[in-house]
Amino acid sequence: MKPSSSHSDLFGDLLAAGPVRAAVDDQAWIRALLDAEAGLARAGATAGVVPETAAEAIASVCAETTVDPAELGASALGAGNPVVPLVRLLRAALPADAARHVHRGATSQDIMDTATMLIARDALAVLDRELADAVGRCAALADGHRRTLLPARTLLQQALPTTFGLVAAGWLTALADARRRLARLRPAVQLGGAAGTLAAYRDCGPAMVSAYAEGLGLAEPVLPWHTDRARIAELAAALGIAAGAAGKVAGDIVRHAQTEVGELREGGDAGGSSTLPQKHNPIRAVLAVAAAEAAPGLVATLLSAMAQEHQRAAGAWHAEWRPLRALFEAAGSAVHQVGASLDGLQVDADRMRANVDRTGGALLAERVTAVLADRLGADQAHAVVREAAAAPDFAAALAADARVPDAAGLLAPEDYLGSADVLIDRALKAAS
Amino acid sequence: MKPSSSHSDLFGDLLAAGPVRAAVDDQAWIRALLDAEAGLARAGATAGVVPETAAEAIASVCAETTVDPAELGASALGAGNPVVPLVRLLRAALPADAARHVHRGATSQDIMDTATMLIARDALAVLDRELADAVGRCAALADGHRRTLLPARTLLQQALPTTFGLVAAGWLTALADARRRLARLRPAVQLGGAAGTLAAYRDCGPAMVSAYAEGLGLAEPVLPWHTDRARIAELAAALGIAAGAAGKVAGDIVRHAQTEVGELREGGDAGGSSTLPQKHNPIRAVLAVAAAEAAPGLVATLLSAMAQEHQRAAGAWHAEWRPLRALFEAAGSAVHQVGASLDGLQVDADRMRANVDRTGGALLAERVTAVLADRLGADQAHAVVREAAAAPDFAAALAADARVPDAAGLLAPEDYLGSADVLIDRALKAAS
Amino acid sequence: MKPSSSHSDLFGDLLAAGPVRAAVDDQAWIRALLDAEAGLARAGATAGVVPETAAEAIASVCAETTVDPAELGASALGAGNPVVPLVRLLRAALPADAARHVHRGATSQDIMDTATMLIARDALAVLDRELADAVGRCAALADGHRRTLLPARTLLQQALPTTFGLVAAGWLTALADARRRLARLRPAVQLGGAAGTLAAYRDCGPAMVSAYAEGLGLAEPVLPWHTDRARIAELAAALGIAAGAAGKVAGDIVRHAQTEVGELREGGDAGGSSTLPQKHNPIRAVLAVAAAEAAPGLVATLLSAMAQEHQRAAGAWHAEWRPLRALFEAAGSAVHQVGASLDGLQVDADRMRANVDRTGGALLAERVTAVLADRLGADQAHAVVREAAAAPDFAAALAADARVPDAAGLLAPEDYLGSADVLIDRALKAAS
Amino acid sequence: MKPSSSHSDLFGDLLAAGPVRAAVDDQAWIRALLDAEAGLARAGATAGVVPETAAEAIASVCAETTVDPAELGASALGAGNPVVPLVRLLRAALPADAARHVHRGATSQDIMDTATMLIARDALAVLDRELADAVGRCAALADGHRRTLLPARTLLQQALPTTFGLVAAGWLTALADARRRLARLRPAVQLGGAAGTLAAYRDCGPAMVSAYAEGLGLAEPVLPWHTDRARIAELAAALGIAAGAAGKVAGDIVRHAQTEVGELREGGDAGGSSTLPQKHNPIRAVLAVAAAEAAPGLVATLLSAMAQEHQRAAGAWHAEWRPLRALFEAAGSAVHQVGASLDGLQVDADRMRANVDRTGGALLAERVTAVLADRLGADQAHAVVREAAAAPDFAAALAADARVPDAAGLLAPEDYLGSADVLIDRALKAAS
Repeated sequence: MKPSSSHSDLFGDLLAAGPVRAAVDDQAWIRALLDAEAGLARAGATAGVVPETAAEAIASVCAETTVDPAELGASALGAGNPVVPLVRLLRAALPADAARHVHRGATSQDIMDTATMLIARDALAVLDRELADAVGRCAALADGHRRTLLPARTLLQQALPTTFGLVAAGWLTALADARRRLARLRPAVQLGGAAGTLAAYRDCGPAMVSAYAEGLGLAEPVLPWHTDRARIAELAAALGIAAGAAGKVAGDIVRHAQTEVGELREGGDAGGSSTLPQKHNPIRAVLAVAAAEAAPGLVATLLSAMAQEHQRAAGAWHAEWRPLRALFEAAGSAVHQVGASLDGLQVDADRMRANVDRTGGALLAERVTAVLADRLGADQAHAVVREAAAAPDFAAALAADARVPDAAGLLAPEDYLGSADVLIDRALKAAS
Repeated sequence: MKPSSSHSDLFGDLLAAGPVRAAVDDQAWIRALLDAEAGLARAGATAGVVPETAAEAIASVCAETTVDPAELGASALGAGNPVVPLVRLLRAALPADAARHVHRGATSQDIMDTATMLIARDALAVLDRELADAVGRCAALADGHRRTLLPARTLLQQALPTTFGLVAAGWLTALADARRRLARLRPAVQLGGAAGTLAAYRDCGPAMVSAYAEGLGLAEPVLPWHTDRARIAELAAALGIAAGAAGKVAGDIVRHAQTEVGELREGGDAGGSSTLPQKHNPIRAVLAVAAAEAAPGLVATLLSAMAQEHQRAAGAWHAEWRPLRALFEAAGSAVHQVGASLDGLQVDADRMRANVDRTGGALLAERVTAVLADRLGADQAHAVVREAAAAPDFAAALAADARVPDAAGLLAPEDYLGSADVLIDRALKAAS
Repeated sequence: MKPSSSHSDLFGDLLAAGPVRAAVDDQAWIRALLDAEAGLARAGATAGVVPETAAEAIASVCAETTVDPAELGASALGAGNPVVPLVRLLRAALPADAARHVHRGATSQDIMDTATMLIARDALAVLDRELADAVGRCAALADGHRRTLLPARTLLQQALPTTFGLVAAGWLTALADARRRLARLRPAVQLGGAAGTLAAYRDCGPAMVSAYAEGLGLAEPVLPWHTDRARIAELAAALGIAAGAAGKVAGDIVRHAQTEVGELREGGDAGGSSTLPQKHNPIRAVLAVAAAEAAPGLVATLLSAMAQEHQRAAGAWHAEWRPLRALFEAAGSAVHQVGASLDGLQVDADRMRANVDRTGGALLAERVTAVLADRLGADQAHAVVREAAAAPDFAAALAADARVPDAAGLLAPEDYLGSADVLIDRALKAAS
Repeated sequence: MKPSSSHSDLFGDLLAAGPVRAAVDDQAWIRALLDAEAGLARAGATAGVVPETAAEAIASVCAETTVDPAELGASALGAGNPVVPLVRLLRAALPADAARHVHRGATSQDIMDTATMLIARDALAVLDRELADAVGRCAALADGHRRTLLPARTLLQQALPTTFGLVAAGWLTALADARRRLARLRPAVQLGGAAGTLAAYRDCGPAMVSAYAEGLGLAEPVLPWHTDRARIAELAAALGIAAGAAGKVAGDIVRHAQTEVGELREGGDAGGSSTLPQKHNPIRAVLAVAAAEAAPGLVATLLSAMAQEHQRAAGAWHAEWRPLRALFEAAGSAVHQVGASLDGLQVDADRMRANVDRTGGALLAERVTAVLADRLGADQAHAVVREAAAAPDFAAALAADARVPDAAGLLAPEDYLGSADVLIDRALKAAS
């Protein structure tokens, strides 16, 4: 068994899998809170609000302090957030002339929101790498399976031939888009003081905000956004869409792996069953599907939490914390597990081809109809195809029909792939 | 600071507050999994499928075993659930002739679902006590404030006088209903084997299910419910409604406590601010609101997860675990924090009365209109009241109007409370 | 084409299909509002608050009045609800001495909520009949296919044999439970007046509420429930669970109908494609899935709307109207379409059996392992089965293995169905 | 009463108010479907797939055709979507040599999705104008109320002074951001044919897609996006965020208008009550809140619908139609109603100022503490302020305290507004 870690739990390795989890765990959050306080002190020095030496002392204590999350959490109840006891800790660790500059002019929400944005920036960077991995795997499949035929399925019915390369190119495009969407997010600092007026900084408010943003490498907002939560909602939506994209790919893998289809199989040892040795559960993809299903409800919660009162909200702000973390975990896990599923995915090209042939050529009915329509008119063409489709063997019926020239040629699936290859090229190019 | 505990986290004491949390934490879940395996072995003995001595050995090992959640979670990945490694652990701890009867005839989901139902039963009992506490506090307020007048507010506009006793009776009724609704739930065992046919028990399947249910004190379902998830959805809905009821009460407390209204104030030390000493945040109620806001999205996730495939699902089952736990925590926290808010709640009856008088008698306009309509007809009555409402002082204008007999008497709010007292009696009786 | 009807729209016949729709349309709502006003007048007569002749005049005008929904909707804006203009219309249609008793002592929400409960009662009765139809069809399939073998599928992998009768019994149980859950709902009248004190009725408030409830055949609530919305949330949850149950069944039908499985096929002409004649889309089931997917989000909206302020809410009440209607339509449509799908569903027993045989006997691996374990011990048994599962032909490998007695007998799927038949009996009995 | 219109319904004028509604109604959808078919024919001509004369004939019939939505909806059931019967209608209205080119090479989803994107583009343009109106009204309030003081409120407790100009600047920023976010959306055509390979166009697929996009003025996607639904999810999220922003503003208006606060009042006649003449419900804002509450659940539904199977989905695509329309209506209505509320909003500056003074100067406690801390040290400063806050009259207590220099000056709220004015400038500039 893998050694226990502080951020493991009973379901965490299954449904909050991958490195995003550690980027949003308690330790990361406390680090971000400390970085936000350090950044505030440094911004104070830049803006002339806090003496340079005090700022350095504060930043230094913030860098060194470690806090037990459970203790901090327990002491957060009095004020309703962990910033108040954290500030108390920092002040206690500093000489009085520096201590009085800790948290200067800020409200708890300034620090919590800024920490959340630091967390978001870092967790998004981790998620970006995970997505890039998955995109890379899809690209390899797309490029490598340009000639691997399988049936396209609509409403779970076989419709026309396609290639597994194009299927993978679709996955690639969805995941690459999710990546691009996340990369557009610009986490911003929060700084407004208790009322959003920056009153405690007298004239230095705007300078403080600029220095704070620049120092932490975050964007500078037009206004304090204590109760304008579009930033959180937009982040939530982008995470939800990434989870949804991963879930779509994972769901497809599960369906391609089902016994009666048998076209894909996850590599590795996972997913076996000692009592049912014929089974090979695509367990990574299954867990990706499960993680993705958590996202829409969490996004809805975060959208509902936009209804915040006046200058700072009475509950809706607090309501963001746990769902936002859970959403990062869900999106991170969905992407991680689908990446693990794609990694070493076994493609059974023979089985794909056998599935193409399963309907005896009827998969090409659209093509036959179109070609015949040019010769015989649409009504005749439909009649020929309908009759053949009703016969026990579509190909044989067609071959026996004098109205049909070169039935065998018409039914060659590799000749009816349209622009599959061009589309793969487009997808590869767009994602690179 | 309170000592760290295994189930504390940075936000947990705020938003997963109260004793329900421990009832659904990793340790509780592992205990429930072990109890489910022990119960299965004992049911096997009752049904004649497992030797009595093997069953006792298994039950004994289950009773004594402790498992590190993080280790178990980490080893769960191969199979996609923690039951498989747990069974491995149990078998390793038993002599071979007992080991082979561990988990006999069951599928992992049988054990996970049964454990979930054990968790639900126990956590619901804890939640019931929390609700009973809150109901008791509301009952005391309802009975004690039958003569405490305050304005009823509709669309946040003062409408008519009411009593704080009736306000509290409304809270009481909502919470008592939530309690009744939760008490109607009947958690049931899950047992079906891999395909839901109970095939591994040959003819003994139904006897196994009966013995299993009886042994664990859970209900016996008509069929295995591996992919019929109404039980989970119903539990989720009842928890969501309980959270909603608690959130409504908490929201009202927050609004009664707002500076301009000032009718209620949370007791205790929490909620103060050293920089803003005039503030007294109703922090318990605020956190109850926040916890309640998490519920609807989680319920939606669990309803969406009803879309399960065939005999056992490819993801939607796994998708239930974290949201269900989070929902228990949210509902438990909302109820706990609102109970803490109600406990020691300070009622400012003078301020309530002052708010009644704030509109200079206009709060009684409905009554005045009705009485005048009987004398003057509806049109005249409306005209009189409209004129008075447009004057600077409603009461004075009315007193000066010759068409109005006994204006002072008409404007006595204590004489226009309708059935407030009878309704309080009904609420107290229904909740007892 | 079917003639246009007032409640048809572009997507309505697909996604708001079936008779529930008309039970919740504008005409039904206006009828319910008029019935609620008539009931109020009659209750007034019973309670001695309204003269008998006025009550009869009001009830008579309510019975005869027809209102154009669009006109009423347009005139609702001033007050924010359609009751105010409706009351105006009724008063205008009555002599003055009756007109003044219209809507006596009630607030708009009393009438809207009571109308909603009348709508709920009637729409639930329609939905009950739809569910009963679907249950009946499942019962016929369950009883008629006790010997129709097919593979049970877990995580979309074939696991063990089962019978289509048991599959249908599972559907039956889910739908019958949904029906029972809906039947437990007890829609109640709403009556409280502007502040919930029943003040306008002086001492007659409780008598009014009783008479109102009895006259309309609705339950009598403990208190006015203007901002205690558990009734709406509970209704929403039960509808959501019904939709979820229908969606599960529909999803299974879609999967059984997929080309590579081919076990089920919807009857009738729908679902064909002129260009892709080999396809036969299970369109009814597909539309049932689609309708069911609308439910969880709507339930979440209605749970969120429990956060209502003081005595009557500033938005959250209005927020219920459209989602509740949409939820009735979604649940009604999901149940209707799955019923239509089940009606005339074609069961391909040969294809089911062929699917059982597709893995060459490996579907019986659990049984073989268990039997061998009794003889050879668990380790040996697993080894034998593992080897056979790795061979190209499981049955042949087993037959060739000297350690395995009677391989052919062991692999007979009809002998490993456990309690399938008993479970079908239980399901049929429980639903009857 | 306003004349009835085809897209009015009982609740529509309240909760689907404003011009967005008509942009997404049945007539708009049918027009978009016809435009999509016309555009396809014209693209065919450009790409050399369809004869020019046929394309013109088709486009001409599309331009002239009117279809009854109810009829089309009713005939959609056979295929599960309205495109199939629409194509039938068009073919019947054309000579055979043009008829055969209708819908050439496309699948129903190509047309539905493209029509949805046309609808989105046009409805977004309407919503943009509505948002611009609301933004303009906020800008006027922000600029005009730079000196209008009122209390900033956090957790519904008065915290510090601010200006109504800055409050309005916050609303402005939220709505302007929502506008910018919507303006970034790039609706794209859908064209892939039955399998997403563009097979029916042979080599002309990419040329078809380009011509289609250019002809309709929509973006050209990398790949067909039949089951890559991020476009829909992103649109949904942006609408949900716009609704959330409008709901936040509306909720603030409702709270500023509450009787005990009394700072804002909606203009116009709406919101009055004949029986409760003292009430003035901010009904527009209330309805905006209600409309906004519908959004999160609908967004969740559309995110859940990203789980689409293979090349075209079995239900999840159909599941998008009604929620997407409802979401446009909800967002459109929330923005429209909040715009109507802002239009003519009455600002009671005296009442705002009275509310500032309500706590007798305690609103300036933060400032007093900071100034005293510089003189006396933090501990002494806190002690002084704590004592004064505990006294009956904060200002008097402070004035009487010898340690406090110039108490009156310290308590002047107009001198403690920080950067309010600069922030207003920033907001005005960013939105222009």
